[in-house]
Amino acid sequence: MHLSEITHPNQLHGLSIRQLEDIARQIREKHLETVSTSGGHLGPGLGVVELTLALYQTLDLDHDKVLWDVGHQAYPHKLITGRYHRFHTLRQKDGVAGYLKRCESRFDHFGAGHASTSISAALGMALGRDRKGEDFKVCAIIGDGALTGGMALEAINHAGHLPNTRLLVVLNDNEMSISPNVGAIPRYLNKMRLSPPVQFLSDNLEEQFKHLPFVGDSLSPELHRVKEGMKRLAIPKVGAVFEELGFTYIGPIDGHNLQELISTFQEAHQHPGPVLVHVATTKGKGYEIAERDQVGYHAQSPFDLATGKGLPSSKPKPPKYSKVFAQTLIKLAQDNPKIIGITAAMATGTGLNKLQEALPQQYIDVGIAEQHAVTLSAGLACEGMRPVAAIYSTFLQRGFDQVIHDVCIQNLPVFFCLDRAGIVGADGPTHQGLYDIAYLRCVPNMVLMAPKDEAELQRMLVTGINHTSSPIAVRYPRGNGYGVPLMEEGWEPVPIGKGEVLRQGDDVLLVGYGSMVYPALQTAEILSEHGIEATVVNARFAKPLDTELILPLAQQIGRVVTLEEGCRMGGFGSAVAEALMDAQMTLPVLRLGVPDQLVDHAQPDEAKATLGLTPAQMAQRILSTYSVEKSAVRV
Amino acid sequence: MHLSEITHPNQLHGLSIRQLEDIARQIREKHLETVSTSGGHLGPGLGVVELTLALYQTLDLDHDKVLWDVGHQAYPHKLITGRYHRFHTLRQKDGVAGYLKRCESRFDHFGAGHASTSISAALGMALGRDRKGEDFKVCAIIGDGALTGGMALEAINHAGHLPNTRLLVVLNDNEMSISPNVGAIPRYLNKMRLSPPVQFLSDNLEEQFKHLPFVGDSLSPELHRVKEGMKRLAIPKVGAVFEELGFTYIGPIDGHNLQELISTFQEAHQHPGPVLVHVATTKGKGYEIAERDQVGYHAQSPFDLATGKGLPSSKPKPPKYSKVFAQTLIKLAQDNPKIIGITAAMATGTGLNKLQEALPQQYIDVGIAEQHAVTLSAGLACEGMRPVAAIYSTFLQRGFDQVIHDVCIQNLPVFFCLDRAGIVGADGPTHQGLYDIAYLRCVPNMVLMAPKDEAELQRMLVTGINHTSSPIAVRYPRGNGYGVPLMEEGWEPVPIGKGEVLRQGDDVLLVGYGSMVYPALQTAEILSEHGIEATVVNARFAKPLDTELILPLAQQIGRVVTLEEGCRMGGFGSAVAEALMDAQMTLPVLRLGVPDQLVDHAQPDEAKATLGLTPAQMAQRILSTYSVEKSAVRV
Repeated sequence: MHLSEITHPNQLHGLSIRQLEDIARQIREKHLETVSTSGGHLGPGLGVVELTLALYQTLDLDHDKVLWDVGHQAYPHKLITGRYHRFHTLRQKDGVAGYLKRCESRFDHFGAGHASTSISAALGMALGRDRKGEDFKVCAIIGDGALTGGMALEAINHAGHLPNTRLLVVLNDNEMSISPNVGAIPRYLNKMRLSPPVQFLSDNLEEQFKHLPFVGDSLSPELHRVKEGMKRLAIPKVGAVFEELGFTYIGPIDGHNLQELISTFQEAHQHPGPVLVHVATTKGKGYEIAERDQVGYHAQSPFDLATGKGLPSSKPKPPKYSKVFAQTLIKLAQDNPKIIGITAAMATGTGLNKLQEALPQQYIDVGIAEQHAVTLSAGLACEGMRPVAAIYSTFLQRGFDQVIHDVCIQNLPVFFCLDRAGIVGADGPTHQGLYDIAYLRCVPNMVLMAPKDEAELQRMLVTGINHTSSPIAVRYPRGNGYGVPLMEEGWEPVPIGKGEVLRQGDDVLLVGYGSMVYPALQTAEILSEHGIEATVVNARFAKPLDTELILPLAQQIGRVVTLEEGCRMGGFGSAVAEALMDAQMTLPVLRLGVPDQLVDHAQPDEAKATLGLTPAQMAQRILSTYSVEKSAVRV
Repeated sequence: MHLSEITHPNQLHGLSIRQLEDIARQIREKHLETVSTSGGHLGPGLGVVELTLALYQTLDLDHDKVLWDVGHQAYPHKLITGRYHRFHTLRQKDGVAGYLKRCESRFDHFGAGHASTSISAALGMALGRDRKGEDFKVCAIIGDGALTGGMALEAINHAGHLPNTRLLVVLNDNEMSISPNVGAIPRYLNKMRLSPPVQFLSDNLEEQFKHLPFVGDSLSPELHRVKEGMKRLAIPKVGAVFEELGFTYIGPIDGHNLQELISTFQEAHQHPGPVLVHVATTKGKGYEIAERDQVGYHAQSPFDLATGKGLPSSKPKPPKYSKVFAQTLIKLAQDNPKIIGITAAMATGTGLNKLQEALPQQYIDVGIAEQHAVTLSAGLACEGMRPVAAIYSTFLQRGFDQVIHDVCIQNLPVFFCLDRAGIVGADGPTHQGLYDIAYLRCVPNMVLMAPKDEAELQRMLVTGINHTSSPIAVRYPRGNGYGVPLMEEGWEPVPIGKGEVLRQGDDVLLVGYGSMVYPALQTAEILSEHGIEATVVNARFAKPLDTELILPLAQQIGRVVTLEEGCRMGGFGSAVAEALMDAQMTLPVLRLGVPDQLVDHAQPDEAKATLGLTPAQMAQRILSTYSVEKSAVRV
């Protein structure tokens, strides 16, 4: 059977192991072909090909529900649930999404993108099922990395308390988050993988009994019974933690052995309560280069399949913000041993892996655990350290209460560095960093800043490190800077709450924040072509806002436009509007930003065009909004 | 020694067990006297008197750090750290706080109020200590309920991975959250309390060996060795979960036996890595009435010490919002079996305990686990259930990412009922429900509403249950309603996005939201005495805002005032201001709400007066803001 013929996962029913192996081979081929061409997640999907096929052979996906945690490992799932022919559009605008979406397929039973959510959602479905008196299976597949996220553990605690609620949790144990795992739970899993204690104890016991003088080589039936009893006592030690938490534990099993997987899943489905099947998989399985470098091939830009090397880009690009962040932080940390960089399993993404290499004593990876990362940082701040918590904008949502309760209410100097703030591109709605300005601005004591370019990021890193009187956060976008000159050292901090004027004009005031400052300048140039001259302010701070600079300019110019790469509701533009109203200045404000809608996956430029945020579109909006007044003034 | 003489906890050093017992008695006396007079948390503190004294006798609090999780059990701590003489001001304005605050005492090493934060913060301090090369002890004391919160488990996972980081976690196991605990972890702890497996196995083993024919009553040395080996194998089963997670486990020990506590803590302090001491305590210990009713006496209004009965209030009060919520929800749930009420250990606070009594099949308590509660609700919604997630405003912060990622991005119909929204009174900064409007408004797909009184809450509950096209949330205050007539059934839903006009006047438009609608009417009356006539709108919805109603009124009246019990930054007033600007209506807006500051504990009316939110103060603000224009109009 060719993979392209599979449009419904139930077509796997009745296939032989040999046929499934053939499908597995085809999935890997298609997977590699697509990701090497378009980019995307590579290692996670390759590791679960057999797991997916085996599980689906034991399920009826017209009724049963499957929930993939995170969803970045669900490409094999996509390829056998009707998306084979569209798979070449992966992560492209209007194409197949890189994560799971309920609106994309009826087989995507729960969307994902962030980690650790699947068991909670699956348990909700299982309880709903039981409440309705229905009888389908619900399976959550979660990685060992995601299992360290607190909400997954909350869900385990709850599910383990419900012995009559049928729920299958498949632990996809590949010994990795994006980076190698952190924590006692992964270490515990690893111990089980390496030396299943049943074997060990049983051998050991046999040995001990043999050395008893009255036993010799053959055991009396009674002593044999004692020995067997001892073995049974020892058996719960494999998976004891899960057994103690109310789960039936099965495993570890070989995640690339279809026969073992199928019979294990069949056995697991017989259990009337919560079951955890521990499956040992290899990230990148079947593509040797990825198996060898599991961090590097977690996700990839387009690359040459034969060599694994990235395709040469047409022209050299400016450095990424994350690279500038890391390089600058390392310099600062070399001079200040109190600086500690903290990540929650985003070491490569944030660039903190470079800090780890350079100054391992000043680096902490807590694993997938944003809540803990934030409050750990608060504890470090209590001891006079300078914690730099580098967390993507979208993932800091996970630590929001900790930002309020542990950091801001106590006014502790934690420095939050929010990478991926704004439109993130191909990762789509779950990963957009659109809400941080709104959700952080409302919290007392917080200082918010954003650089116009990578050189200003360097200065703001110094600002953040120097600022010890309150929490402070800097947001910066995913991707490349502008290629402006960077300094090797000696950066001058930006004064707290001070913006700057970048361009002067009498007709309209453009106040840009962070990544929208350069677009504001471009917009001003377009306006100029239409005879409208704009003053452009780089606000630098959303809180405290530079009212001393902005308000007089607004009063004088009379028309205000704000520009931000974040949600319009409650965002930077609202901050400017609030400041004007609080000063009893009744002026028109046009707030340009992301409207109140989800932003789908697409290249950032494409997404911005969809949202009306290109300089040309923004200039047009400004012209149409303010044209009447302009004519009135000029006439 | 009299308790009043203890101003520094190090004064406990060298006291005999008898002396400590005497101090314990005095602490309980003072504790009971104060809480029965002022109200406050009763059971938690009474349960940890010996634990506190024993721990502090083994610490040097000039250097060592103690972190009490939640902080509601820290009254004994307060009484021996210099707050004895002020303790009668407990939970009163400018008095001793009900939780911990770094600014209140140098012995409050980390503030708290929400659960499950202490281990993260303690680990941060321990890592900071080691980084500085210092050598003090860090102890986190966490309840068995708080241990089910995901971030505590994240912290355990991290700490257990650091064998050389000295950290003491004291598990205060009283078998309770506010309500009885939920989950497999508390059940596991309980199992350890009830039948320490060491004993059981060892007895059992002895028995088995005795029945071997060749053994009889006396064991050969070899068989004895085997038996001892078997016991050692079995011993890790007590606390096996913690041991597997990298902690040295000690316990369970009697939490009211000072000698056992002291020697155990001394032993624990010798360990070079993370240690967990499992202490079994009785909530309410020493006050029999509270020991018998641990839920009822978790926290108390003023009561008669002899009988435990609440003091008769001077006059009958209107029903609490939580009571109206519960009664109405039960009625609705009786008619609609798909309704499921979900709480995260707030059963009594939200009133959902009444739903549990009436319709146990339509009730789920997940324990202290807000993140899981939200995503479980999302899973229930996928199955066509009508999940009603009743979570305090301040605690939903803990599930913010789940609201975005699992509910709103997937547009699932979860109904959030946010009790304690607004000023909460005596609980203080950690519990204020001030941010929910701002942090929920920025998320796409969310509908936000708030009732003006308890009768409108009834209607909005119907609205929320009927609304299945998106997530929806209602916020309502802590405390009593206005005593307006309530209906027993047959409530008419409020149309989505529709406000109402309650009063008409030409001079100023007051737009109130939720609990500020009646104060807006009172403010209008005061304005009227000054010759200013106000139109008062009950907005009902912060999102979608009733622009069809509000904008024409604003245009016509020309001066707008918004009133809300929430943060001004990004809140309801900003929503109105944004709507005006988006409609290119350049009008003055005075936004009345909570300024960008923390709000300390005080009676709600006192707090509002401090914030300038009484009707008289608001009228004054309006008069002074708009006086010039008014004169201009009238002249």
